[in-house]
Amino acid sequence: MDDQSISPTYASPPSGQVTTGPIEGSVKVWSSPPGRDDIRVPFRDIALDPSANEPPVRIYDTSGPYTDPTAAIDVERGLPRVRSAWLATRGLDATAETRVVKPEDNGFVSADRLVPSCPAPHGVLRGRTGQPVTQYEFARAGIVTEEMIFVAHRENLGRATMVDGAEERRADGEDFGANIPAFITPEFVRDEIAAGRAIIPANINHPELEPVIIGRNFLVKINANIGNSAVTSSAAEEVDKLVWAIRWGADTVMDLSTGRNIHNIRDWILRNSPVPIGTVPLYQALEKVGGVAEKLSWEIFRDTLIEQAEQGVDYFTIHAGVRLQHVPLTAHRTTGIVSRGGSIMAAWCLAHHRESFLYEHFEDICDIMRAYDISFSLGDGLRPGSIADANDAAQFAELETLGELTKVAWSKGCQVMIEGPGHVPMHKIKINMTKQLRECGEAPFYTLGPLTTDIAPGYDHITSGIGAAMIGWYGCAMLCYVTPKEHLGLPDRNDVKVGVITYKIAAHAADLAKGHPAAQVRDDAISRARFEFRWHDQFNLALDPDTARQFHDETLPKEAHKTA
Amino acid sequence: MDDQSISPTYASPPSGQVTTGPIEGSVKVWSSPPGRDDIRVPFRDIALDPSANEPPVRIYDTSGPYTDPTAAIDVERGLPRVRSAWLATRGLDATAETRVVKPEDNGFVSADRLVPSCPAPHGVLRGRTGQPVTQYEFARAGIVTEEMIFVAHRENLGRATMVDGAEERRADGEDFGANIPAFITPEFVRDEIAAGRAIIPANINHPELEPVIIGRNFLVKINANIGNSAVTSSAAEEVDKLVWAIRWGADTVMDLSTGRNIHNIRDWILRNSPVPIGTVPLYQALEKVGGVAEKLSWEIFRDTLIEQAEQGVDYFTIHAGVRLQHVPLTAHRTTGIVSRGGSIMAAWCLAHHRESFLYEHFEDICDIMRAYDISFSLGDGLRPGSIADANDAAQFAELETLGELTKVAWSKGCQVMIEGPGHVPMHKIKINMTKQLRECGEAPFYTLGPLTTDIAPGYDHITSGIGAAMIGWYGCAMLCYVTPKEHLGLPDRNDVKVGVITYKIAAHAADLAKGHPAAQVRDDAISRARFEFRWHDQFNLALDPDTARQFHDETLPKEAHKTA
Repeated sequence: MDDQSISPTYASPPSGQVTTGPIEGSVKVWSSPPGRDDIRVPFRDIALDPSANEPPVRIYDTSGPYTDPTAAIDVERGLPRVRSAWLATRGLDATAETRVVKPEDNGFVSADRLVPSCPAPHGVLRGRTGQPVTQYEFARAGIVTEEMIFVAHRENLGRATMVDGAEERRADGEDFGANIPAFITPEFVRDEIAAGRAIIPANINHPELEPVIIGRNFLVKINANIGNSAVTSSAAEEVDKLVWAIRWGADTVMDLSTGRNIHNIRDWILRNSPVPIGTVPLYQALEKVGGVAEKLSWEIFRDTLIEQAEQGVDYFTIHAGVRLQHVPLTAHRTTGIVSRGGSIMAAWCLAHHRESFLYEHFEDICDIMRAYDISFSLGDGLRPGSIADANDAAQFAELETLGELTKVAWSKGCQVMIEGPGHVPMHKIKINMTKQLRECGEAPFYTLGPLTTDIAPGYDHITSGIGAAMIGWYGCAMLCYVTPKEHLGLPDRNDVKVGVITYKIAAHAADLAKGHPAAQVRDDAISRARFEFRWHDQFNLALDPDTARQFHDETLPKEAHKTA
Repeated sequence: MDDQSISPTYASPPSGQVTTGPIEGSVKVWSSPPGRDDIRVPFRDIALDPSANEPPVRIYDTSGPYTDPTAAIDVERGLPRVRSAWLATRGLDATAETRVVKPEDNGFVSADRLVPSCPAPHGVLRGRTGQPVTQYEFARAGIVTEEMIFVAHRENLGRATMVDGAEERRADGEDFGANIPAFITPEFVRDEIAAGRAIIPANINHPELEPVIIGRNFLVKINANIGNSAVTSSAAEEVDKLVWAIRWGADTVMDLSTGRNIHNIRDWILRNSPVPIGTVPLYQALEKVGGVAEKLSWEIFRDTLIEQAEQGVDYFTIHAGVRLQHVPLTAHRTTGIVSRGGSIMAAWCLAHHRESFLYEHFEDICDIMRAYDISFSLGDGLRPGSIADANDAAQFAELETLGELTKVAWSKGCQVMIEGPGHVPMHKIKINMTKQLRECGEAPFYTLGPLTTDIAPGYDHITSGIGAAMIGWYGCAMLCYVTPKEHLGLPDRNDVKVGVITYKIAAHAADLAKGHPAAQVRDDAISRARFEFRWHDQFNLALDPDTARQFHDETLPKEAHKTA
């Protein structure tokens, strides 16, 4: 591959910096809902060639201020705290004693290898008992929050014109019982959250967040996982993994870092993240006991939850559905327990021969997560790791437990989504969605793929993109990406981009099939551009303008070929 | 990207040669059905680590003798003519006068640029009236041919053990009314062909062919398109495009070459192809009239059919469903007519304001194709080129015409499959399959994707791989690949490989979902290898062992990491 074929945007930014600059062909815009100039919702506008005689196409945008050329980006200062003013009116406790950072939080890193903490100012808030804190509690109380107004405006893509033909588009789709309205109002958002059908993961200690809603009556969302490198050259390098993933469309990012410096790196990520950050606190708790599962305890886990809660993590994967009684159900599996969290909890249960401390302390966990409005992502520790194990007794027993826990979490005022598989052949995907909706009272489903065959390592973004598109269509609210390196190694910069773009395809294909009234606008615009040979418009409207342009230029590099 | 990350198999072979050598980790084997040592069916065996204590996994193999280290490959001599002895017993006419090559056949190429004709010997056969020639005619007469015996053995993957658990696997799948037996007998093959539900594209002038069956009660097949380069450096370079595509799993290859030397290049390809070759004769006919559609005539088209028939092309795309009355139905489309064949015929109909000569001469076309047993691939000239145009009146009107023509072709003794879309959102895919089965009497369906969204140029192997997997599950018999360069430019060597692997994933995911009794064996073997950290076995069982190994080695390059 020669230099010409490497897009400049694939290159890493200079040391100490993150990737900035507009996405090719797009202009970052901020739009406010009527009467709420204090709420600025991000979009991208793609202007078309004058010959098209069409207005710009407005696109949902997750990339934060990084793609706004007028924004001053400084990872040491962090992003603007857009939610601070909203949070200031909610009677939250800003004076409570906060947790002190301990050596084990950063994996006992030696002083010479310590990544310093992020200097961006960060005050810690905590909810009070008896007053609403979570979006769920506000919604149940009939209150519309600024976050709800924000996501309503965001989901509508700011286009009043979307209402035209919206009913026809919905009728033309097949949504399997979902209920996507022609226009999203803040009240609709509130009602969906109150019903438990949607969540806005938004820790009160993450004021930098641009809120996003996850639920099957909204645009399908995608998550990208990132993790620290074995040797970190700088905090900015870790932040750039986030920036890179959201540049291409990740709606949320899970930080799955392990080992040294993870507390401080998490701080840098949160202070610089416009998207919800999820974690698996169990991973850090395990680090604190030297990686020995049986040494885990409720006390260490609880302390880790508070540590991450104060930092501002927006959702926690909690593997409370792996019960002692479920472990024997995996004995005859082809691939046993493949979830890391599931393996840890199964090992703990077997070592102590007692019920999981996550299950036993579930109400305590709810109390902590409610106090910061951290959403549950109830982990599927027993998800199938192969086609052979799909939809087996272990998987479904856990799902039934997750349904039971969902109701507990709701009763405690928490927002909840449910994690799902995994490896599932096409004909067994729909039952996963149907059963999840039934068992978990329509709480949002959040699946990894699923991968529709096991035989293509190196291409599992594709084996899983097929399953992701299908389950998104059937009603899955968020799709966790899989990169080409799945099963083989750690993804690099290009793998992350390919994974994100593949999942944007899956999510968008699902939106189209559901008859989402706003989805086909972009397809129609790019199809008209294609038919009229407006090449620049076709590139700019693409999910990945750089690659589209590069592929075209490889064979037809002349400017004349782009406007012909 | 550094040199290490480029797999050696991505490199082109030396000038004048084609890609040879075993697929990493596989051994080419030839197996004969009981009592028929004259029929040698190709497979690949993947031996597993002794610690697995498992027999080798036998894989369907399309790569021909090129991956057999014991085979002497010489493109000037062509492949062994494995069918000659079978054909010799069928009373075919080997003495009829044959067509003489004309200057226009090679695009009036000048002498200095002429690619010489392939020196491999090639006698021309023709069927006689009143005697069976086609596989369809033999099947209707109750006769089992060698081709039927060959494909039966091939589909069973030579494993008697496949019968164990086959009924359970079938019952576990969802096949939408298909009828995949636990074990494929030659008589079952015959009956499927006689019913029109399957075809074996096998021109009597293509003796080098290793027969393959296409039908929804068999393994899902994939096609790769190739085309000549603007400047051909050698005939071997063109043959290598075929060899490269079948190495990774293409079941058939369509030669869509245009311009100079296409007659001679087609000769080289056919003499060296173990897989069925398809063409669109209309493309060459258009070249002969200087690219001006209105100058086309039945006489020129007819002459081109005979030219290619004598060379040995196994199936022809015939766009006889584009009727004059259909053209106005496309007037208000977003992307008009995107099929090249469809555009040519629509232009001809409008220019002359008369019915398509392909439609009017359809019975004459049948007579020619029957005489050589060339299968019909009835082209979908009005397939949708965008989500907006999916399943519209033009598309379905043409499909109904194709159903009518299918019955004519059968009455003339011909084998038939039907081409399908195109760009179709997920929720509109199934109706395409259902309607095709109904309109076309269950003749095999052969679709391009479909692409499930328009917004991802550069990734259309993925947008279409999603749709291909789904329609394959629903009953589509063959999936025409789409490469990452779709809509943007001509695919290079890597694009062809990525397209083929993506479609192998789609076809295999479909086989799994249908409950094909032989499909999950490979998934189970690779999953066990994964669970037991048998890395070499995991790589070797992968659809693309080279990429799996390379991705793994990028992050964990030590040998110890592969056997741990």
